[in-house]
Amino acid sequence: MTSRLFLCLAVLLPLSALAQPATGERPVARVSSPDGSLEVAVTTDPEGRASYSVSRSGRAVIAPSRLGIMLTDAPKLERNLDLVEQRTRSHDETWEQPWGERRFVRDRHNELRVTFAERAGARRRFDVLFRAFDDGIGFRYDFPAQAELRQLNIADELTEFVLADPATAWWIPAQEWNRKEYVYQRTPLAEVGFAQTPFTLRTDDGLHLALHEAALIDYSAMNLMRVEGRRLRAMLFPGTGTAKVQRAAPFATPWRVLLVSDDAAGLAESDLVLNLNAPNALGDVSWVKPMKYLGIWWEMHLDTKSWGSGPKHGATTAEAIRYIDFAAEHGIGGLLVEGWNLGWDGDWFANGEEFSFTEAYPDFDIERVAAHAQAKGVRLIGHHETSGHAAHYEDQLEDALDLYERLGVAAIKTGYVADGGQAKVRDADGALRLAWHEGQAMSRHHVHVITEAAKRRISINPHEPIKDSGLRRTYPNWVTREGARGMEYNAWGEPGNPPGHEATLVFTRMLDGPFDFTPGVFSMQTRSGGRIATTLAKQLALYVVIYSPLQMAIDLPENYEADLPAFRFIEDVPVDWEDSRVLAGEIGEYVAIARRERGGDDWYLGAVTDDEPREVEVALSFLEPGRGYTAQVYRDGPDAGWRSEQSDIVIEQRTVTAADTLSLALASGGGQAIRFVAD
Amino acid sequence: MTSRLFLCLAVLLPLSALAQPATGERPVARVSSPDGSLEVAVTTDPEGRASYSVSRSGRAVIAPSRLGIMLTDAPKLERNLDLVEQRTRSHDETWEQPWGERRFVRDRHNELRVTFAERAGARRRFDVLFRAFDDGIGFRYDFPAQAELRQLNIADELTEFVLADPATAWWIPAQEWNRKEYVYQRTPLAEVGFAQTPFTLRTDDGLHLALHEAALIDYSAMNLMRVEGRRLRAMLFPGTGTAKVQRAAPFATPWRVLLVSDDAAGLAESDLVLNLNAPNALGDVSWVKPMKYLGIWWEMHLDTKSWGSGPKHGATTAEAIRYIDFAAEHGIGGLLVEGWNLGWDGDWFANGEEFSFTEAYPDFDIERVAAHAQAKGVRLIGHHETSGHAAHYEDQLEDALDLYERLGVAAIKTGYVADGGQAKVRDADGALRLAWHEGQAMSRHHVHVITEAAKRRISINPHEPIKDSGLRRTYPNWVTREGARGMEYNAWGEPGNPPGHEATLVFTRMLDGPFDFTPGVFSMQTRSGGRIATTLAKQLALYVVIYSPLQMAIDLPENYEADLPAFRFIEDVPVDWEDSRVLAGEIGEYVAIARRERGGDDWYLGAVTDDEPREVEVALSFLEPGRGYTAQVYRDGPDAGWRSEQSDIVIEQRTVTAADTLSLALASGGGQAIRFVAD
Repeated sequence: MTSRLFLCLAVLLPLSALAQPATGERPVARVSSPDGSLEVAVTTDPEGRASYSVSRSGRAVIAPSRLGIMLTDAPKLERNLDLVEQRTRSHDETWEQPWGERRFVRDRHNELRVTFAERAGARRRFDVLFRAFDDGIGFRYDFPAQAELRQLNIADELTEFVLADPATAWWIPAQEWNRKEYVYQRTPLAEVGFAQTPFTLRTDDGLHLALHEAALIDYSAMNLMRVEGRRLRAMLFPGTGTAKVQRAAPFATPWRVLLVSDDAAGLAESDLVLNLNAPNALGDVSWVKPMKYLGIWWEMHLDTKSWGSGPKHGATTAEAIRYIDFAAEHGIGGLLVEGWNLGWDGDWFANGEEFSFTEAYPDFDIERVAAHAQAKGVRLIGHHETSGHAAHYEDQLEDALDLYERLGVAAIKTGYVADGGQAKVRDADGALRLAWHEGQAMSRHHVHVITEAAKRRISINPHEPIKDSGLRRTYPNWVTREGARGMEYNAWGEPGNPPGHEATLVFTRMLDGPFDFTPGVFSMQTRSGGRIATTLAKQLALYVVIYSPLQMAIDLPENYEADLPAFRFIEDVPVDWEDSRVLAGEIGEYVAIARRERGGDDWYLGAVTDDEPREVEVALSFLEPGRGYTAQVYRDGPDAGWRSEQSDIVIEQRTVTAADTLSLALASGGGQAIRFVAD
Repeated sequence: MTSRLFLCLAVLLPLSALAQPATGERPVARVSSPDGSLEVAVTTDPEGRASYSVSRSGRAVIAPSRLGIMLTDAPKLERNLDLVEQRTRSHDETWEQPWGERRFVRDRHNELRVTFAERAGARRRFDVLFRAFDDGIGFRYDFPAQAELRQLNIADELTEFVLADPATAWWIPAQEWNRKEYVYQRTPLAEVGFAQTPFTLRTDDGLHLALHEAALIDYSAMNLMRVEGRRLRAMLFPGTGTAKVQRAAPFATPWRVLLVSDDAAGLAESDLVLNLNAPNALGDVSWVKPMKYLGIWWEMHLDTKSWGSGPKHGATTAEAIRYIDFAAEHGIGGLLVEGWNLGWDGDWFANGEEFSFTEAYPDFDIERVAAHAQAKGVRLIGHHETSGHAAHYEDQLEDALDLYERLGVAAIKTGYVADGGQAKVRDADGALRLAWHEGQAMSRHHVHVITEAAKRRISINPHEPIKDSGLRRTYPNWVTREGARGMEYNAWGEPGNPPGHEATLVFTRMLDGPFDFTPGVFSMQTRSGGRIATTLAKQLALYVVIYSPLQMAIDLPENYEADLPAFRFIEDVPVDWEDSRVLAGEIGEYVAIARRERGGDDWYLGAVTDDEPREVEVALSFLEPGRGYTAQVYRDGPDAGWRSEQSDIVIEQRTVTAADTLSLALASGGGQAIRFVAD
């Protein structure tokens, strides 16, 4: 599936001699992006501290920033370093995704491998590998096997990102290590505190940047601590032992990523993070099926049903069958059932060990539900809430997956709600340890679950997950995840998500990958009857704006049945794409995205705005030139607005071509969805 | 020596019933300062999270801020908490210092002890103890012994300090955990990154605040991470194991301290941190002698002499004798000799295990030097640079201290230079571990050295130390320390300390205690011949401005001999005080301080300014009313300024009384020193 199509050119340039330094100067290694716009320079200071810097068209983007690692049991790798060797390499490849925002991805970059060696003491060596793309750079530490550095017990990275220019930042704080569900804040870079990634910036000169990481495997995730000024430092999540990360050499860290773009759209369109991940490791993944799904779920958030047993229990056989029938009738591929299994009745929040992943509540006949689903051509989406007790989940994992495999379950939504404490993992010594959601132990846990699920042709959608770092490329059954404030915050109400939330997500959280945001609320009310900051047209637009190969239609069947003309867009909209284009957008204000159906000719457009009503002009030049399209438009009506008439929607058709420009009128908190049907 | 003089009143108020809350309300515990101006309120939120807030005259100073602890091996103590008990208590005591800025210290506060208990699960309990003074508050966690909480393995504190109002902050960053020698930066509070304490603030309304800690014993020091907005969170130094702190219950944490004052002077005059420390634990400490001292030291920083052996070796017998003779002649009590012992010749920076603390270089006849010193009435100040290898130092500690005791050494300057790596300590299991300068292991090390030295009547002055938290009260032989950018940065030159450095230190670093800043540079040149940002008069003023019971006169004897009239002030100025008053000052701009000699009638005044020349008016009302004084004035001359005539000084006398006001004319980078001789 990940067949290498098109040109695949990997040129190994000869080992370059280090540029001969003038007397007293230290060597500087450099690499430029293929179009020459971005340049990375790597050097050492008089005390032998390694640093890198990044410039774009000759102007500094990242000022000299330190490289290094602190260890818990050996002197830090940080000074008395010589830059002893450099090698460069060029790469141009186009590869095919099994599913995604676009079918073909081009990976074109120049690579620089720099070797540092201590000039005294243990004379340890390590490489830093840089890849320069036209839209950003990635770098990772690579530790070769060596007598003096067999095992790395990492206290922390000393990696810095010193931004050269003042900027505005969009970010969420890193607090107590296990929570990502915050409203994004916009502050001057100088007022950033302790931030999670992706971390998005716009310099005062309008350059758009994002910091993140790629290929987070068997390592702790990185947060960014602003130490002072514009100096950000990597701070890794704690481990389960003294070290934050324990790895044997040889090994390479995750990539540290900088995206660079003239506009916000360029950040959202970047494939750089995917390109820094290893190719598909799972072989045939044709069984990974993107789909829309319904869920026995929203009613729990509205508090009209419950996860636990009793008169309000949501996951009953009858209810599941009702949903399956509705899904089959409307071409919705899947049904999530939460609260189906034993363990929800106690204080599950604190006691993950009470969950059974193989035993259903008596009023949920899982065999019958599964058979009915199969008969109707609907796939079940399983549910495994662990409340963070990963060790307990792993104890049951094989049995739980075997059950779901036998029942024909397509994917599992896993969950790691652990606000009340920490995750629990089993260490190598068999002892139970507290862990953090994005520490090394949980990083391992997630990959373990993914690979076990893959053996059974099951996809995984973790909630309260470890951050995405592009691992869907390597593990294509890791289809989506949560890891941000989704729609359920709007059920809980005050404060729900602000109207600009989704236009922020596209340029922040979505830079790391698919998000099971769960759009499609037609009722648009909180559980206490308050307003959700949206119009109906916006809910439809979100199916294009927020990319997820598992895309939920969250509302109750009866609410969809009450407005089938609008629901038609949800029926029609695909979940897998041949191509995607960000047509316009400003972070936190608005965004318009067009996507072409995978293997089809039709295009779909979604646009959303924040509190501000606005008209967004979009050229339709993405359409096939010379071809006619029928645009099926779902737009905010004249009285629409999230504070006024939320349901005021106009559904209309018009004929357009690639030569046309549309002016999308978006109400306050509104949006627009369009299907372009090729003639 | 720490006899309780004057009134000592401790009133135990009856156990208060919790104020009966209205339906649905949660209990709030409150305590006010003795004058009623400061109030602390403690409560829980609906999820049972504990918080405190502080107001002054009804206006918020600290907005509701969380309390709690994360553990590595048990659920965090953070939610599902009930406030189950509160007790209040009043205290008014005046105690005598063996030495200090003032002889008598009043400790007057109201105390509130709040007990939190988990309402579910393990039902663990802990207290938070608040003390409200008129000039600030302190609080600490106090963990009683209990079956469910025998051992606390602390991952981190969740303690927050949410500042209610925008402010300007003066702070140094916390970077890689073992460095304090930064120039203080001044930024908006909103731009603070990761800061060390003492952390000083001035709100936009002019209220002066400082955050710090007291009684840091067997615990990790606290830095402040600004997570977002005005929310600061405690972040403890890493430990040597999984936990940052490992303690068995019962135990209490260090005090978290907030100082509050209308003006900068009030911060600098506060005794709150001392009051939160336990009384003298050493018994008779009459042998602790404040003194001035010379050193074989500045010449090493000027690079004309060396610590290591060879032709430039500084610590020779002849040189020591020359210094002793000069000291004796000029009434200087002590002589520090650095580079006297074996171990300096290799890469000592990285190899602390090469130091011998009992073997002198062959050209330094330590017995002869000690005998000469004794004959001349000069005390030797020993030197133990460990380069952070605390374990190696502890291995030799008893022998090293025995040697110094036998030789009559008064005090030891210890050193923990470990910029190149970390400190090394021996864990309970005997294994060598890397540690951080302000982690729990080093906290223990310092107290171990202090108590071992006390047995031998030796005082300790650690450089590259753990921060001061008022422990000099409990261990009066812990006379001073470094822990900030001292004068040596001016020897090294560009950039040296800025002209406003000392006027910043008084309101920042000096809030934690005495500082071995090492003033008195008459040559006022860097080692490359550049200018140090000072005038000669400022160097004299520093003997009053920067408090240290071990106060150095850093320059070479020949430089003092070249200007004996100015040196006279250094000869005269005491190092121990009956009282101290901050007469005027703004953080980082200027400060004027007056102190009365301990057991004497004479007052001394020091005033310094930053780059700005200025006139500072000071009322002499601190002098004894009706008495005449001869003011011996050392002031910047008409052409003085750090960029112009650094040595332009006017020495003159005038007669004054308490009714007079002086206008102190300070040149750019200048100062003024005055001795008021009582008639």
